[in-house]
Amino acid sequence: MTTDLLSSHRERLNGALKAIHDRGYHSAFPESPSPRVYGETAAADGKAAFEAHLGTTYALEIPGSRGTVVTEQSPYGIAMDVSYPRVVEDGLDELLTAAQQGLPDWRRAGIDARTGVALEILDRLHRRIFELANAVQHTSGQAFVMAFQAGGAHALDRALEAVAYAHEEMNRYPATANWEKPAKGDPIRMEKTFTVTGRGVALVIGCNTFPTWNSWPGLFASLVTGNAVVVKPHPLAVLPLAITVEVCREVLAEAGFDPNLVTLATERAGDGLAKPLATRPEVKLIDFTGGSEFGEWLEQNATQATVFTEKAGVNAVIIDSTDSFKALTGNLAFTLSLYSGQMCTTTQNLFVPAGGIETDEGHKSFEEVGAALATAIGKLLGDDARAVEILGGIVNQAVISRLDLAPEYGEVVLESRAIQHPAFPDAVVRTPLLVAVDADDADVYGRECFGPVSFLVKTADTAQSIDLFRSTVTDGGAMTAGIYSIDSKVLDEARDAAIDAGVALSENLTGQVFVNQSAAFSDFHGTGANPAANATYTDGAYVASRFRVIQSRRHVDSIH
Amino acid sequence: MTTDLLSSHRERLNGALKAIHDRGYHSAFPESPSPRVYGETAAADGKAAFEAHLGTTYALEIPGSRGTVVTEQSPYGIAMDVSYPRVVEDGLDELLTAAQQGLPDWRRAGIDARTGVALEILDRLHRRIFELANAVQHTSGQAFVMAFQAGGAHALDRALEAVAYAHEEMNRYPATANWEKPAKGDPIRMEKTFTVTGRGVALVIGCNTFPTWNSWPGLFASLVTGNAVVVKPHPLAVLPLAITVEVCREVLAEAGFDPNLVTLATERAGDGLAKPLATRPEVKLIDFTGGSEFGEWLEQNATQATVFTEKAGVNAVIIDSTDSFKALTGNLAFTLSLYSGQMCTTTQNLFVPAGGIETDEGHKSFEEVGAALATAIGKLLGDDARAVEILGGIVNQAVISRLDLAPEYGEVVLESRAIQHPAFPDAVVRTPLLVAVDADDADVYGRECFGPVSFLVKTADTAQSIDLFRSTVTDGGAMTAGIYSIDSKVLDEARDAAIDAGVALSENLTGQVFVNQSAAFSDFHGTGANPAANATYTDGAYVASRFRVIQSRRHVDSIH
Repeated sequence: MTTDLLSSHRERLNGALKAIHDRGYHSAFPESPSPRVYGETAAADGKAAFEAHLGTTYALEIPGSRGTVVTEQSPYGIAMDVSYPRVVEDGLDELLTAAQQGLPDWRRAGIDARTGVALEILDRLHRRIFELANAVQHTSGQAFVMAFQAGGAHALDRALEAVAYAHEEMNRYPATANWEKPAKGDPIRMEKTFTVTGRGVALVIGCNTFPTWNSWPGLFASLVTGNAVVVKPHPLAVLPLAITVEVCREVLAEAGFDPNLVTLATERAGDGLAKPLATRPEVKLIDFTGGSEFGEWLEQNATQATVFTEKAGVNAVIIDSTDSFKALTGNLAFTLSLYSGQMCTTTQNLFVPAGGIETDEGHKSFEEVGAALATAIGKLLGDDARAVEILGGIVNQAVISRLDLAPEYGEVVLESRAIQHPAFPDAVVRTPLLVAVDADDADVYGRECFGPVSFLVKTADTAQSIDLFRSTVTDGGAMTAGIYSIDSKVLDEARDAAIDAGVALSENLTGQVFVNQSAAFSDFHGTGANPAANATYTDGAYVASRFRVIQSRRHVDSIH
Repeated sequence: MTTDLLSSHRERLNGALKAIHDRGYHSAFPESPSPRVYGETAAADGKAAFEAHLGTTYALEIPGSRGTVVTEQSPYGIAMDVSYPRVVEDGLDELLTAAQQGLPDWRRAGIDARTGVALEILDRLHRRIFELANAVQHTSGQAFVMAFQAGGAHALDRALEAVAYAHEEMNRYPATANWEKPAKGDPIRMEKTFTVTGRGVALVIGCNTFPTWNSWPGLFASLVTGNAVVVKPHPLAVLPLAITVEVCREVLAEAGFDPNLVTLATERAGDGLAKPLATRPEVKLIDFTGGSEFGEWLEQNATQATVFTEKAGVNAVIIDSTDSFKALTGNLAFTLSLYSGQMCTTTQNLFVPAGGIETDEGHKSFEEVGAALATAIGKLLGDDARAVEILGGIVNQAVISRLDLAPEYGEVVLESRAIQHPAFPDAVVRTPLLVAVDADDADVYGRECFGPVSFLVKTADTAQSIDLFRSTVTDGGAMTAGIYSIDSKVLDEARDAAIDAGVALSENLTGQVFVNQSAAFSDFHGTGANPAANATYTDGAYVASRFRVIQSRRHVDSIH
């Protein structure tokens, strides 16, 4: 059956393999939730499937679990009340023993069989995309369409990308080789066998804001390379990963493998399960998305494992000049508003010269730039019903606390506004706050203030903007960076600074591409070259150390 | 000029690129020191070049160095008295600042230019192969032909292999891409640029026994991927790496790059320079060969860097049965004798059933197997003049101390013998010691006893041999493993056990291939899958994390 699985998804794999090399536009999973694409009943069916989970116990048999636990709280204020098997430190022996049980069979199945299983899982997750979108919406607070796209279609693309990279990487080595060394008389002949073997148990630690998008690349990269995967979701965003793990286990079991190759380790918030789990000797790979403090702890303490982290950063945009001022403000307004700025890729710092900038609408002072951006945001979010579909909900109370403090950091250019969600009366919705600060307020803008808070940093000139961009990103990291300039020399300098600081650069975005969005197969997400992340989705380094190659060799004339 | 460099070595690169995929026999540097290959005067010229170093100060200008230091002591007893610039902790700021100075130019030069420089360096090292062989011989104690092969030709092949892997890995990403997403109306068009950038400063920590073979793969992998490299040689094996660094700097300068991209950090023995150097924030990559204790310290403490280690292990051979008993003992005798067993790949543990084994010469008892192996070693090393060309010299006093203690561990099957070197009266030469121990003496054979000491481990049967092989390698690691059996079921079990334990397996070696030797381009050295090493020479994981890809993107109609 497993060979059939790869055959039936071969075209999808081939498309992905081609895309990771030319890095042009590619998508294997339609991003439009339109009934014309997904069918008339898909949206309602998916919503019903989501709602059927509410108030129930999720049917997953997790070795080492002790009872169940309810941990989620929808940012939209609906009652979730889904119970999950609770994993506690005492159960880790059992969990990890069970996780390893199926490894020999999973290894022996070989590259193609594992790839087929992974692709089948993706296909089945795709069939549940509306259910997943609802689950992502109600755990992360993303608006529905964003949850469908970022949490569904784009997450599937990122997962497929990871599978493609891993598949290619494993196939870099021949399964067998003939070695014939010239010698006096007959050559020396050997035949060699090369076996790809996983590292052991992989741990995926999910985050609250992007439970699928940020977890799937690591999960699939580890699984397809022959590892068992323990998924530890964020306590506030379990359901999307419970569905994920359920599908993984279903496909594994149907294909004749041990379903415990993928398990879900739900903890009660505050149990602190991640530390003991991450430092277990069986755990050889860790994928983490979340705060810098715990990410750095993992890098420094889980030294028995290869650790991939995505942490915090101070994303920046340099505004030097533009030939499309209106489009500039419109583009940035969307970036700052989308999901209330709760993306690890949202711009925090906008560097603008004190003397203002040249534009197609004439010279604009520092204040005018700020005012125009505030106006654009106001316009984008002027209608509450439309605004909530961009903003989504605030993911948790910590974001509100930061937002409440932020006006004190400088001069408020645009106040944050609470919006009443027309469909969810208890949803917590906020518009972006813009605060002007001085170049020497690096203690404010030099660290991440996660949420709908951005700083207009008043610099002496663009040269200082570039310097501050380089230094803040070098020290604080960044997932994204942008530059607006009509001066090719300035663009060159910004590119150099971006390479020095190790961050990807978006130049003059004035249309339907946004600095906070990366396209699978084409844009790398993170670079691994600055403190915000030690890895990227997805490159060779993201997959190559997830497996090892074990060889055997023998003379051709010997017994085998 | 740098483009020309790649052109002139293109064929060599292409040969290597092909070889790493088919993994058949390949060598780019002839391993025979014969005058027919290298010319009539090459050997004498190389020896003279080596001797010209003795008693002099090596002409290297190293930033941050403070005076000079003499640290070497030839295992052959000759006076080396070569002075090197001494790097001390106080000078590290200066050294690392200088190392980073040339990074932007090195990055901007691009993949092909860096590859060309690396290949030119290899070519020039090849021209100095006899000088290098003498330097390796007199620092490691390897006999001359081995020093020429392992320390010269094979080390060049391993370095070329690393360059080929790195070159291919960097070329996995296009330099530019066009991205065109279908949209209502005109598609959204972007062009993207992808730049390969090194991680920063790479540190290579050399070892005493294989100063070139074990250092070059990491050095060249890091250099070609855009990093600066600080080489910290073992205090007892500096000269081969001083020559290496000199050639690197010479080629870099000629090609217009900063020679400080490669520096030599010679310390006085006992200065403990490696720890402060390895934990500097500028150091992003570390390649280490040496003892487990310091290797593990690096893995656990140099968490700001990606660390590649090759440490100690308990290499094993399982003896179950054979159809070529004489050839088996002959093959193993050579393995145990070569370089007095001072290879990280030399077999330490020979698992033999208490009830003996079946052979083409009839049943052989446990004692007969030991006696036959002892006889084979005795015969191989019977003539002192021939013996020293296999054994070489003992690399340092620690090996002698271990050898002196080892007879107490069990029943001596073959005593170690001191040999008077006919050419070097002060050389310290020893033959292998064979000690029989019981299966339950795991406290003895379960840890590495580096040097000419091997244990014949008496097991209940081959099933126990395989179990002990699996457990000792899982716990203690191994660089190599072997099996002798005429039973295909036993071979299968051994292969499974080797994969479980994560070690490469050599089966029924009875000819001119030895378990302790790996062939570049075909055999992986180490696996990264057991405690003996966290990496292998060379695979994708060995090169992929040595660089990052930084992209920029812009709409096609925008300024650039």
